[in-house]
Amino acid sequence: MESEPDSTGNRNGLVIPKNHRKLHLLKVDHLYHLALDTEKDDLEKMFGDVRFVCFGGQPSRMEKFSALVARELNIDDHEMDGDRPKNYAAGTDRYSIHKVGPVLSVSHGIGIPSLSVVFNEIIKLVHYAKCKDVEFFRIGTCGGLGLEPGTVVVTEKAVDGEMNPYYKLAVLGKPVQRLAKVDQTLLESLLRCSEPDDDFKTVKGTTFCSDDFYEGQARLDGAFCEYEEEDKMKFLQELRNKGVCNIEMESLGFLAMCHYAGVKGAVACVTLLDRLQQDTLSCDVSMLKRWQVRPQNVVLRHIKKKLHITNGKS
Amino acid sequence: MESEPDSTGNRNGLVIPKNHRKLHLLKVDHLYHLALDTEKDDLEKMFGDVRFVCFGGQPSRMEKFSALVARELNIDDHEMDGDRPKNYAAGTDRYSIHKVGPVLSVSHGIGIPSLSVVFNEIIKLVHYAKCKDVEFFRIGTCGGLGLEPGTVVVTEKAVDGEMNPYYKLAVLGKPVQRLAKVDQTLLESLLRCSEPDDDFKTVKGTTFCSDDFYEGQARLDGAFCEYEEEDKMKFLQELRNKGVCNIEMESLGFLAMCHYAGVKGAVACVTLLDRLQQDTLSCDVSMLKRWQVRPQNVVLRHIKKKLHITNGKS
Repeated sequence: MESEPDSTGNRNGLVIPKNHRKLHLLKVDHLYHLALDTEKDDLEKMFGDVRFVCFGGQPSRMEKFSALVARELNIDDHEMDGDRPKNYAAGTDRYSIHKVGPVLSVSHGIGIPSLSVVFNEIIKLVHYAKCKDVEFFRIGTCGGLGLEPGTVVVTEKAVDGEMNPYYKLAVLGKPVQRLAKVDQTLLESLLRCSEPDDDFKTVKGTTFCSDDFYEGQARLDGAFCEYEEEDKMKFLQELRNKGVCNIEMESLGFLAMCHYAGVKGAVACVTLLDRLQQDTLSCDVSMLKRWQVRPQNVVLRHIKKKLHITNGKS
Repeated sequence: MESEPDSTGNRNGLVIPKNHRKLHLLKVDHLYHLALDTEKDDLEKMFGDVRFVCFGGQPSRMEKFSALVARELNIDDHEMDGDRPKNYAAGTDRYSIHKVGPVLSVSHGIGIPSLSVVFNEIIKLVHYAKCKDVEFFRIGTCGGLGLEPGTVVVTEKAVDGEMNPYYKLAVLGKPVQRLAKVDQTLLESLLRCSEPDDDFKTVKGTTFCSDDFYEGQARLDGAFCEYEEEDKMKFLQELRNKGVCNIEMESLGFLAMCHYAGVKGAVACVTLLDRLQQDTLSCDVSMLKRWQVRPQNVVLRHIKKKLHITNGKS
């Protein structure tokens, strides 16, 4: 006998969307922005063994991440399109999906609205696919505050552009707030994935999640900016004093949606610069590329532990 | 003698960003998300003749639009990459830029935060390129309310998910509101581009701009939905009664940023379905593709009039 869904919407490790009763009345569910649907695609066969869903902004970065997953987990039987890992969302260019073994790599674009579209459809995907005990990660890049550039920050608390710890949206014209509650076990597990001989630090802290890259993040080099250098520094220092370690554009919505959906979720981002020092990137591209792999490796270490992989094979 | 910037930030038809004084202190301005900069790229040579910037969500659609521009304006000397129009932002996969004659086609992704990043950088691009008398358009798809699917809606007024007519963002941690004021001459001009033998209507109306595709737009088929069919219908009917013609995710930010930047801007979107009838698309893909071209054609007719083109050549 199946247990009833708990308050988070899960049941026996399966992901049960809060909206599952209405969804099951649909003859076909179109995961419209992924170009997948429950009629033409056998989602359980395609994705039933997925246990880890890793989101990131850029399609190219998530494709490279899936290649890294293949190397690190020593998986060579994943589907390819020529010499590139297959993109399961190739029917659209809104998002991309790659799959290597139990790890799904998904691009989410920039900002919470873009993320929320693909998040809704991925929750439905892992539901229809009957995935069990799924964990969600956002792996990204960010600006840091008072940290050495290249540091990996695991989000302990996410706040919006006015320091509120909840994701606000309007439903049927009325404001709704959803708490961005971090899963403590996942947070602690990621922090334990730091290794003594890492050439970078992995820290936890508050993430400031802005809806804007320029003014919202107190940059001086956008098309719009009606404040001065000293206003910017005062603001960024205030954030730092309140425990903010890094700034990006999706963590709040991501963690709030994970919590609301009842899936475990965590955010790990590498700082590309120290915003107390500069607004724009000055280091070379090859260094940035090496840094981008750092949070990917931290999450991959966690995944390997969960899969009991030590030297590439479970 | 150059005149001082007027209240909108323009001067002699040039786009002068509100932040131009700080920008001109930069040694190099990196248009980071476009993979262009003021040092390696001769922006004036590359883009100096641009007079129309057309934004749309998907890269593939904007690439197809640029091919349509080439046919309609009878321009065959634009740069190509093999058999595809050159993507000037090919150094990144965050956004795409194509250029055919005086028309720039730019993809903006989904939602206002994604749009705002590229919008800031495009304003700076047309500034550095010394483009004159530039007009901005968003050309997209949307859900309609009580209109025959396939209708083109030109936005007369844009409102957010709580019916506020302004774009809200947080700057230095404080809430800021920017009015989404529509340029009346551009609005009227687009409406006059409707032709008697069109097999579709072009109408003006209020656009409901949501930060979310599912709950924010009262859909019943997202992962999250805690209301019922009757709540949805009541809400959508209320929107209709208040003059809302269509629903999408960028118009408010687009029009507010155009107004704030001092560039003329307009939004034309085709309705893919009537939300009073259904939540998901049911018509065939070839029809959708034909419909997507409708707002593109309306904007192209305007562009041809401005360029005094009658039979393909000016």
